[in-house]
Amino acid sequence: MTLSNDDVAARVHRYLETVANGTADDVTALYAPEATVEDPVGSDPLQGLEAIRAFYATFESLPKTTELVTVRAVAGQAAFHFRIVVDLGGGATSTMEPLEVMTFDDDGLITSMRAFWAESDLVMA
Amino acid sequence: MTLSNDDVAARVHRYLETVANGTADDVTALYAPEATVEDPVGSDPLQGLEAIRAFYATFESLPKTTELVTVRAVAGQAAFHFRIVVDLGGGATSTMEPLEVMTFDDDGLITSMRAFWAESDLVMA
Repeated sequence: MTLSNDDVAARVHRYLETVANGTADDVTALYAPEATVEDPVGSDPLQGLEAIRAFYATFESLPKTTELVTVRAVAGQAAFHFRIVVDLGGGATSTMEPLEVMTFDDDGLITSMRAFWAESDLVMA
Repeated sequence: MTLSNDDVAARVHRYLETVANGTADDVTALYAPEATVEDPVGSDPLQGLEAIRAFYATFESLPKTTELVTVRAVAGQAAFHFRIVVDLGGGATSTMEPLEVMTFDDDGLITSMRAFWAESDLVMA
């Protein structure tokens, strides 16, 4: 059965919490086996858990926080706006606020993620 | 050539301005001939200008304002958060803040629109 809208929103929250506080393995465990990740939109989509794990591993070791700004959940899918602040060390941070679209299977695993952002949206401080 | 990110964002602005101030024909003119509209996500997509015109005609006569909250433009596509306030008469309004995803062709016409919102997101006042 398609996830309820509340369940979809809860899974978006869990995803952002895991990106901030979990390992690449933890994040990958939220994805379905054949899932795709297009981040940013326009890049070649990654497919499968090995490719997805490698993607999250690239920034696994950087301290970061995430915050959900807005989420709209419907029909087992979500669009959401979030903020991610990465601690680059020495007091420097990078902040990005992508809009993402996610689809979920009936078990609540992510089947696709697409992230809308451009280089010009990155704020270094 | 794929639209620049600035051009994509400008077309999102024009779309919202036209929804607020234009006729159903004006909005339809922003769409490509074979465009699809899925509003809300999970409903059967409308395809083609006749179906799209009929969709916008249903609320053409209601006074309304629109406001762009956030837009991310990349690769000829956009995700955006906007507010639409519809004047229902007698001081009553309905407010909705969908997140939408749009794709554009090289001429800047909308080729697809998907609107993420649920009934529970509608605020009546």
